Amino acid sequence: MLTVQDALIRLQKFWTDRGCMVVQPYNSEVGAGTMNPATLMRVLGPEPWRAAYVEPSVRPDDSRYGENPNRLQTHTQFQVILKPDPGNPQELYLESLEALDIDIHAHDVRFVEDNWAQPAIGAWGLGWEVWLDGMEITQFTYFQQVGGQNLDPVSVELTYGIERIMMAQQGVTHFKDLQYAPGVTYGEAFGQQEYEMSRYYLDDADVDANRDLFEHYTAEAQRLVDARLPIPAHNYVLKSSHAFNVLDSRGAISTTERAKAFSTMRRLAREVARLWVERREELDFPLMKSQTDVKVQVRSAIMPPRPDAEAPETVATSHDSQPLAIEIGVEELPPHVVVQAIEQVRTTLTERLGATRLTHGAIDVVGTPRRIVATVADVSAHEPDAESLRKGPKVAAAYDADGNPTKACEGFARGQKVDPSSLVRAEFDGAEHVAVTVTEKGRPVIEVAEQLVADLVTSLRADKNMRWSDPQLAYSRPIRWLVALWGATVVPAEVSSLRAGRTTYVHRTDVDPLVEVKDAASLRNTLEAHGLVLDPVVRRTQVVDAARTLAASVGGTIDFDGESALVDEITNLVEQPQGILGSYGPKYLELPEQILTTVMRKHQRYLPVRDEAGELMPYFVTIANGDCDDELVRLGNESVIRARYEDAAFFYDADLKVPLTDLRAQISKLTFEDRVGSMADRADRIRDVAAALASSMSLSAEESKTLARAGELAKFDLSSQMVVELSSLAGTMAKEYAARAGETPEVASALLEMEQPRSAGDAVPESRPGALLALADRFDLLMAMFALGAKPTGSSDPFALRRAALGVVSILRKHDALSTVTVASGLAAAADRLRQQGLDVSSESVDAATEFVIGRFGQQLRDEGVSVDLVSSVSSLAGSPGKAEQALGDIASVRHSDTFAPLVEAVQRITRIVPEGTQPSYDRAHLTEPAEVALADAVDGLPDHAADSIPEWAADAGALVEPLGRFFDDVLVMAEDADVKAARLGLLQTVVSRAPRGIDWQALHTAIA
Amino acid sequence: MLTVQDALIRLQKFWTDRGCMVVQPYNSEVGAGTMNPATLMRVLGPEPWRAAYVEPSVRPDDSRYGENPNRLQTHTQFQVILKPDPGNPQELYLESLEALDIDIHAHDVRFVEDNWAQPAIGAWGLGWEVWLDGMEITQFTYFQQVGGQNLDPVSVELTYGIERIMMAQQGVTHFKDLQYAPGVTYGEAFGQQEYEMSRYYLDDADVDANRDLFEHYTAEAQRLVDARLPIPAHNYVLKSSHAFNVLDSRGAISTTERAKAFSTMRRLAREVARLWVERREELDFPLMKSQTDVKVQVRSAIMPPRPDAEAPETVATSHDSQPLAIEIGVEELPPHVVVQAIEQVRTTLTERLGATRLTHGAIDVVGTPRRIVATVADVSAHEPDAESLRKGPKVAAAYDADGNPTKACEGFARGQKVDPSSLVRAEFDGAEHVAVTVTEKGRPVIEVAEQLVADLVTSLRADKNMRWSDPQLAYSRPIRWLVALWGATVVPAEVSSLRAGRTTYVHRTDVDPLVEVKDAASLRNTLEAHGLVLDPVVRRTQVVDAARTLAASVGGTIDFDGESALVDEITNLVEQPQGILGSYGPKYLELPEQILTTVMRKHQRYLPVRDEAGELMPYFVTIANGDCDDELVRLGNESVIRARYEDAAFFYDADLKVPLTDLRAQISKLTFEDRVGSMADRADRIRDVAAALASSMSLSAEESKTLARAGELAKFDLSSQMVVELSSLAGTMAKEYAARAGETPEVASALLEMEQPRSAGDAVPESRPGALLALADRFDLLMAMFALGAKPTGSSDPFALRRAALGVVSILRKHDALSTVTVASGLAAAADRLRQQGLDVSSESVDAATEFVIGRFGQQLRDEGVSVDLVSSVSSLAGSPGKAEQALGDIASVRHSDTFAPLVEAVQRITRIVPEGTQPSYDRAHLTEPAEVALADAVDGLPDHAADSIPEWAADAGALVEPLGRFFDDVLVMAEDADVKAARLGLLQTVVSRAPRGIDWQALHTAIA
Repeated sequence: MLTVQDALIRLQKFWTDRGCMVVQPYNSEVGAGTMNPATLMRVLGPEPWRAAYVEPSVRPDDSRYGENPNRLQTHTQFQVILKPDPGNPQELYLESLEALDIDIHAHDVRFVEDNWAQPAIGAWGLGWEVWLDGMEITQFTYFQQVGGQNLDPVSVELTYGIERIMMAQQGVTHFKDLQYAPGVTYGEAFGQQEYEMSRYYLDDADVDANRDLFEHYTAEAQRLVDARLPIPAHNYVLKSSHAFNVLDSRGAISTTERAKAFSTMRRLAREVARLWVERREELDFPLMKSQTDVKVQVRSAIMPPRPDAEAPETVATSHDSQPLAIEIGVEELPPHVVVQAIEQVRTTLTERLGATRLTHGAIDVVGTPRRIVATVADVSAHEPDAESLRKGPKVAAAYDADGNPTKACEGFARGQKVDPSSLVRAEFDGAEHVAVTVTEKGRPVIEVAEQLVADLVTSLRADKNMRWSDPQLAYSRPIRWLVALWGATVVPAEVSSLRAGRTTYVHRTDVDPLVEVKDAASLRNTLEAHGLVLDPVVRRTQVVDAARTLAASVGGTIDFDGESALVDEITNLVEQPQGILGSYGPKYLELPEQILTTVMRKHQRYLPVRDEAGELMPYFVTIANGDCDDELVRLGNESVIRARYEDAAFFYDADLKVPLTDLRAQISKLTFEDRVGSMADRADRIRDVAAALASSMSLSAEESKTLARAGELAKFDLSSQMVVELSSLAGTMAKEYAARAGETPEVASALLEMEQPRSAGDAVPESRPGALLALADRFDLLMAMFALGAKPTGSSDPFALRRAALGVVSILRKHDALSTVTVASGLAAAADRLRQQGLDVSSESVDAATEFVIGRFGQQLRDEGVSVDLVSSVSSLAGSPGKAEQALGDIASVRHSDTFAPLVEAVQRITRIVPEGTQPSYDRAHLTEPAEVALADAVDGLPDHAADSIPEWAADAGALVEPLGRFFDDVLVMAEDADVKAARLGLLQTVVSRAPRGIDWQALHTAIA
Repeated sequence: MLTVQDALIRLQKFWTDRGCMVVQPYNSEVGAGTMNPATLMRVLGPEPWRAAYVEPSVRPDDSRYGENPNRLQTHTQFQVILKPDPGNPQELYLESLEALDIDIHAHDVRFVEDNWAQPAIGAWGLGWEVWLDGMEITQFTYFQQVGGQNLDPVSVELTYGIERIMMAQQGVTHFKDLQYAPGVTYGEAFGQQEYEMSRYYLDDADVDANRDLFEHYTAEAQRLVDARLPIPAHNYVLKSSHAFNVLDSRGAISTTERAKAFSTMRRLAREVARLWVERREELDFPLMKSQTDVKVQVRSAIMPPRPDAEAPETVATSHDSQPLAIEIGVEELPPHVVVQAIEQVRTTLTERLGATRLTHGAIDVVGTPRRIVATVADVSAHEPDAESLRKGPKVAAAYDADGNPTKACEGFARGQKVDPSSLVRAEFDGAEHVAVTVTEKGRPVIEVAEQLVADLVTSLRADKNMRWSDPQLAYSRPIRWLVALWGATVVPAEVSSLRAGRTTYVHRTDVDPLVEVKDAASLRNTLEAHGLVLDPVVRRTQVVDAARTLAASVGGTIDFDGESALVDEITNLVEQPQGILGSYGPKYLELPEQILTTVMRKHQRYLPVRDEAGELMPYFVTIANGDCDDELVRLGNESVIRARYEDAAFFYDADLKVPLTDLRAQISKLTFEDRVGSMADRADRIRDVAAALASSMSLSAEESKTLARAGELAKFDLSSQMVVELSSLAGTMAKEYAARAGETPEVASALLEMEQPRSAGDAVPESRPGALLALADRFDLLMAMFALGAKPTGSSDPFALRRAALGVVSILRKHDALSTVTVASGLAAAADRLRQQGLDVSSESVDAATEFVIGRFGQQLRDEGVSVDLVSSVSSLAGSPGKAEQALGDIASVRHSDTFAPLVEAVQRITRIVPEGTQPSYDRAHLTEPAEVALADAVDGLPDHAADSIPEWAADAGALVEPLGRFFDDVLVMAEDADVKAARLGLLQTVVSRAPRGIDWQALHTAIA
């Protein structure tokens, strides 16, 4: 059996064989190998660096007294840094797994999007978590920035989770059972340490002492920065970070302290980083020489295809049209980027090809996480030549009276290198000019395609882009190879360091992963012959079919409608869907369903299997990528989900032991936003704002009791271990735990409802207490952020204020019973409560927040297909979305009646004619024309107040349509006689005054016209 | 080339293959791998443990900004712990060197005594430094005690000094030039760190902050001990230790702080150790199971010889006498123990053999560091039977009146299992008893020898003894095998785990190191045939001859008289002397000779080569052990001494840059003894006491000036880098640096003289200022320690007070000019000065110190061969050793004259007769007898006062011999007449009063009789 220490030694050997230097673990507590200067500093600046090391990573927060099977206060990372990116880090990594006896041909190894950011040290990168049969075993990151500095070159960081890998490899379910060394288990070797250090971190560390330590450490770090000594400064930054973590795990960090500490550490980390680079530069970058001195031996690992250094083969170029085929090879794109990439390539290709004079047939673009493949049928071999006129001086200025060319004309001809006699005349913008006929030579397809391919590659952009070994390109993930063929001919496109060829790269685990492609026509076939399913639509169908069949094999089904987004994601996580059915212990079905499905969907991308009644069965379907040993992969995935459920059960049981009030008290340790207090402060505000909103309506005694109790418990579950682990279960667990703790079903439900809707399309609260809490939650969030000036900008909405605004709107739209609450009143209540807490909330910020919410409402309506004009027509009601909603419904219900449109037209016509301030009254004595008398009579037949609703009005006012028509036909409103005119205007205004309030008649008229 | 990281990986592999667990370096700064809990805690208690790990060891004091070629603030240890001692740790270790490509057959690898103790953690052990061609590459220790706890089982600790080993292997002279990894040097990888961390430790660390840190750490440690959490407690002990080291390197530790800190850390370390064992016991010693579960595979490495598990071969035992041969095989004994061991075996063997009835010939015992070999010629095959009488009741009680046996007699007979009729009669102590004749059967030689061998082994004892894997034995180093043969027959002696056989163990590097010995007669031959030189006398001769020849080969000589002790030591460091001549750069001859010779002798055990004028030549002779590649070993040794001289030159140059007064000021950082202040306090006292002593004599103006200046500078060199490195150069460097700094030659000399005599036989100060300072130094030391109650006990004399006392005596004996100083007056002056500093010095302690010094003087005289009686005869002068010395010389000069002995006899006779208080006067009127008149006349002829010296008296008083003889013959002193009696006693007392004072005549009489 491969012991843990064997694994460490193997990895060390593997990476030193590949030019890595062995570094020792840092001799002060660090939370991750990343913090070791061998990573954090060495990735800065231009010097090359390759290092591999073990890092026992200390995370006081993960202390569990050694009881949790998967969680340790000190876990073992194996860290590799490759700087610069060697061009094939994934391949090297996969080979390293083989060094651990992991058969990558039998297992399902996947690279699943995972972006890393550590704002506390001004660092981020893009990459993946590497999955082995569904288990995350490694973090794989291309570092982009550290200490606020852009990295050039980019470094690759690999962080192996040794305990996890080895638990899987050894098939044990508790870390203590790992064979650490021959005859010694992990528990025997480190069990006591786990217990005792957990005791220290959770129970026994002296808070005052650690607070003092923190202060001393940061002060030393600052002094050392000032003394320009980045290494000892960093040492003290690390120590301060650990002291902070100790305080945190002891629950001793107040919001203010946290904010202050983070700001201090962030500043220091940035200064250390800056200083390190400066000092290295002063030392003349000592390791720069290694770059030339040492050629790192990269053994056996595959490199992405590279065309031969020589010129691409010359193939007799056909004169007939030929298909053009392009493959852009990438490292695993995030699923949503696959979709975007296909679209981008399709659009760019269509546009750019359209801008040439090549003729071509259908354009088809498909793709997988690892490649975008475009094919264009029948691309002509050559552009035809084209003639065009180049404009010279006006004819009038081109020839003198004698018809001889003027200087201007001669100058133009000379510039065009033609004789003036060969100039022609042509009309440009209605004026006659001399001109020269220019023949633009048609380019051969290869030349056109070269540029085209380059444009395709350089135009690729994602929402988050990164750098890698390429000197110029930037994209979501590295672009590693290009295939470009026109017929059998290579299109020798060059883009930065890439060069197109005819070699493609199929599954990495294929026996011969690099494959020659004969010609453009066979590119897709070649790839598909290697199992790759290029078309996402086909892939999705395969996913669905495979899952359905597997589920059926145990008498189950899959809710494909409910799981639609997940199926989409899965489709773009693989190149060759391979369905595998797994099961888990039925005992876990005792856990709340939400927990089970959250783990399956969110963490594992498993499709849950249900019985006919829709209840969960203890099965799941996972989609592996390509051929593998199904049985092995199934077992692996099962053990992962078992561990996760075991964890969840552990948290669940642990949480159930803690009284709700204790959990509620503990949320004071959670930061909300520095300036507006902790999460507990926020929960208190939500309780109070909900109560304030409730005062405007009459709740039943039962509802009032529910609101009060749920308000007291608001957000208590945020401190539960389950929600700390699975934050998407916030609310769900509140309901669950509250019910289990004996709260009423109404209170339990309200606690869930207050979190709803959690996303677009999510349910909105049913009960009034729940709805009030949900509103209060969002009003508080919006108002707090607007008061702080933190309103969303273009792409940045870190506090999800858009979602909050939509939540407000959704609730108010659905809840008639809450009609006393308006956007403005809710925000005002939130503002008052925030002011009580000492926050300065300006009335401008309340207005801005109100406007923001209403704006989002309009957007929401428009997104729902309501026309802009219709939205505008009810805009003055938007502050009460329920009313606006009602109005829109009313309009819809009557808009197709015969009289409604004319009525609206008339009203809008009146509103245009009648001056502002006109009173809805008139002296009937002055109305003498029959048409005006008839109208006055009709008006008198209406109720003498504004209609309550559009349908009511439409019904009543239908009688006005005909008289109004006659009135406008026969009567001149603007009579000479002032009294007559006043009476006529008053009559018309009276018509308007009977209409319902709050409608923009101009807009409504346009909308329904 | 084997890089540093290769070496670490190779060692890791080597030791994990031998059952060691890989442990990570500790994640807090530690000064040595020993401090990692993987050593410090795991060696406690009964659980087995094998671990191997890298430990970057941080020693702030060793900070040199990366400039010193051999010294780093962080150096790399590779640490191995084997618990229990596997029985062959040396063999395993040697094999590990081969794993580093070190050819142990070609190199000279030696195990040189080095005992380890760390009182700060209550820990000690015995072992060696391992030398590779003269370079210390590893510390090899059998841990005996840790945290004040005796270790059972004993652990073996190996600590490889990686930088040193690799510098030798790579042949580089600066650590920065080491190839750390392919293409990366140590300097490139860690140079900046060395510089910056040195800056922190030496210049930039905030003292107040680190002091606070220290306090917090120790407080946390204490709290955690109280909470029974040894692991986090230890963590904080380590952190406090590091904070202390930082403060120390910043020169911020006062004597009081140091004392307090050490006492705190010691206490904590002990409590942690105690607690760890308690906690492990509570956990049921989890690793105990491994002992049975896992059989560690020990590959290829040789085990010391063990007889077959079966009974030893039966060889037809001769009836003739045969030689007996015994070999006790050990791991390398310290040189002085070799000598003791040979003597112990000789003595024990002689005594025990003498107590048997075996006849035997000559006993011969020889030995080397690895074996003691005893041979006894002609040992008879069997003891003869012996008859003896066993005493019964007295005859009177044995038979009744009728001559029949009494009950008592019958009881005796029954007890002896004989019939009463067979009893005989015999006289015991003059009384006649009944008795029984008992025949004691002679035992066969094998049976006798079995016990003899066992006794020999168990009786071995050294001044420091240790435990190892053996369950019962204890000795200076492990005893690993036994050979015992009588003729060709194995003596199957068993001693604890050892069993004698016929297999011996020659050089470990021999092709077949285990060799069968045919019979007793061939044991020595067999060993000698393998090159082992068993007889120390022969070995010494070989050492001398080889060294002489090699020195002569470059025209040099060796001062064998001066190096006699070194030659003795070398003789017992090897089993087969192999002389090798090495050289060093002539440029180093510019360093003071003392430095060069100290390094050669003390550190390297090299014999310095001199020219005919006695000046050093740039050569040395080292004695390797056994065959090796002379050239390789020479180069290795040369590189070691070059590095050492380079270091010394570095220190020397650095020291010369520091003004003497600065150096003097810095000794305030050096502890002397907690309660009596720093070394600077002590130097101040020495200065003052010397001045006080000087006031009793008249110094010349020049001497006074010298004394004052030298007093001001006293001990300044203790803070020089050179003396910190080579403490035996204290005084020598003071003289050197003072002279170079422009002090007068007298001042410079006085600074050296004040340290003299540094050992028995060393020179004593020539000049009066030097002598006064030397005396003051010792008086202060003695008085301070006696005042503190720290006087030496049996074997313990940590402050070397015996040496100090002998120093006082030696100086006073030699310096007539200091006769005004007595032991008592000097100590009184020192006491006064100590009292000024606030120390409570009782008069009893002054008396005790005086008595102690005088007692040492007597001992010294006796050691010089002066008879006890002669020493006693001058004991009342011993407080002024100069006078006592004088008196002894005087006695010697006259003792053989005809008259002296009778004169002394007469005087001692008088002193016995004459009552105390008798006045030396008499009324001549009462003296009438001719003999008494003649004596009175003779007395009158003497000077009328006591003689100043013995020779003077002997000359003058010779005239009394004859009259005194007659007086005693003829005159009855105790006359009836009181007046006559008084006159006679007065006359005799007058004789005595003319003799010199201070002589014990009784003792002198006995002495010269």
